[in-house]
Amino acid sequence: MTDTVISSETREVVIGFDRPFVLIGERINPTGRKLLAAQMKEGDLSQVEADAIAQVRAGAQMLDVNAGIPLADEPALLAQTVELVQALTDVPLSIDSSIVEALEAGLAVYKGKALVNSVTGEEERLERVLPLVAKHGAAVVAITNDETGISEDPDVRFEVAKKITERAADHGIPSRDVVVDPLVMPIGAMSGAGRQVFHLVGRLREELKVNTTCGASNISFGLPNRVGINGAFLSMAIGAGLTSAITNPLEPEIRQAILAADVLCGNDPNCAAWIKEYRQAPAAGEEPRRRENRRRRG
Amino acid sequence: MTDTVISSETREVVIGFDRPFVLIGERINPTGRKLLAAQMKEGDLSQVEADAIAQVRAGAQMLDVNAGIPLADEPALLAQTVELVQALTDVPLSIDSSIVEALEAGLAVYKGKALVNSVTGEEERLERVLPLVAKHGAAVVAITNDETGISEDPDVRFEVAKKITERAADHGIPSRDVVVDPLVMPIGAMSGAGRQVFHLVGRLREELKVNTTCGASNISFGLPNRVGINGAFLSMAIGAGLTSAITNPLEPEIRQAILAADVLCGNDPNCAAWIKEYRQAPAAGEEPRRRENRRRRG
Repeated sequence: MTDTVISSETREVVIGFDRPFVLIGERINPTGRKLLAAQMKEGDLSQVEADAIAQVRAGAQMLDVNAGIPLADEPALLAQTVELVQALTDVPLSIDSSIVEALEAGLAVYKGKALVNSVTGEEERLERVLPLVAKHGAAVVAITNDETGISEDPDVRFEVAKKITERAADHGIPSRDVVVDPLVMPIGAMSGAGRQVFHLVGRLREELKVNTTCGASNISFGLPNRVGINGAFLSMAIGAGLTSAITNPLEPEIRQAILAADVLCGNDPNCAAWIKEYRQAPAAGEEPRRRENRRRRG
Repeated sequence: MTDTVISSETREVVIGFDRPFVLIGERINPTGRKLLAAQMKEGDLSQVEADAIAQVRAGAQMLDVNAGIPLADEPALLAQTVELVQALTDVPLSIDSSIVEALEAGLAVYKGKALVNSVTGEEERLERVLPLVAKHGAAVVAITNDETGISEDPDVRFEVAKKITERAADHGIPSRDVVVDPLVMPIGAMSGAGRQVFHLVGRLREELKVNTTCGASNISFGLPNRVGINGAFLSMAIGAGLTSAITNPLEPEIRQAILAADVLCGNDPNCAAWIKEYRQAPAAGEEPRRRENRRRRG
């Protein structure tokens, strides 16, 4: 049992074994969203507002906030975005940047205990990010690559995760506040990418006893019907022990895959969350599954 | 590596570890289908014909054939149905009855190597069904209950499976021709039902080294949006090692959950089956997942 508590000023979310899976909304991120990037750079945060509200309404328990725009003043923009999102919603945030100064600026204005996204196993990152995480009493996402890049061998990635948790401990950060990202490769390029993640998530849980997260949609890069792959991947990864993911709550199939996996892992007591979400479906009849399906999509 | 080869006169299907999952179409079964039961009893097999063709077209690699209608001459009806389905399609069949005389009648007319569905751990069933399976050189579904009923303890169900494979060996049936059904309970009534099956499937694969099958839809009994639970269950069970299931190929979400799990387990080389099924989706853009999703459902 490992619980990672993340909070806003008024709300706590617990990422943990044998608890409902935590969906961290991925949408507030200009990477690959040209229009959003252009708006944010101009200081127009109206789409950020809309994305924040829509994701929480769709069931995201946390939101990831990223302001990584080339040639923008990322620290100032990230701090502004964090403040805006905290004013609009009460869900805890993951403060996301590859620039340490931006993480610092985001943490300086954040109210509550944030999730810092992220640190890697690179020496320079460890020694800059971990003191910041410790200073703010935050939790941190640990990405399992280091100076040598991303190993294709999941056992090497496990060792990087171990090194990060040990270094975090040296800085006074307990392992329950290190959420490891096993790194998801595109299955279209590497047919073992799924099994690798399932195996690594299991080892991280059994041996390091840490919580886990991932950017789930990378798995389907380059394939058609990406949401079909992403949904099945999430269900299977949850079955293997994954406890959170940064993904898109606005996709009904993603939400469904996560809620169903919670039911099937015994982490949705009395199936209450499932029934609340889907009870408008008609009662059982001669061919209930086909009817429900049509009705729900209609 | 355990391969269970099932065949019709002209086609072989292999249920096996590290192979594409085998979907056995469940629709030719009057249980719970009043109209079909009434038609079949009157000798009208037109719906059977339609169900056979539609299921194979939807991707079923095998078909289950059941003619269990109260007060009907089940042996004669099952034999007639088997002959009809074999005349219409070339997929191998699972001959399904709880009446030994019906299994016998079905096997007598069957062309190829059938899957006999099923034997249990009950002494009387073992000693009547296994000689029949051996005589016809068939494979058999082994259901993990015995005289004491269905144990809620998956380790007891494992022992029943072990007893059946050992008894099969006594009758000259190799364990590769025993496909074990771990028995799927409704998750709405038993919150541990999912984890139980995943655990048991893993043990059956690692320790008994047998292939597995199940009637997947029982998992969602009594819940809304059954297909959502069934799809996630199948993906997760495949991740845990399940190698076949008797389910409904006419559900697009079920097919998708199975094809995605094949991709994610590395059992769809070059994602060829996935791409063939879904390539009509548009190419990647700014928000590819949402667009694809809308288009595919439209």
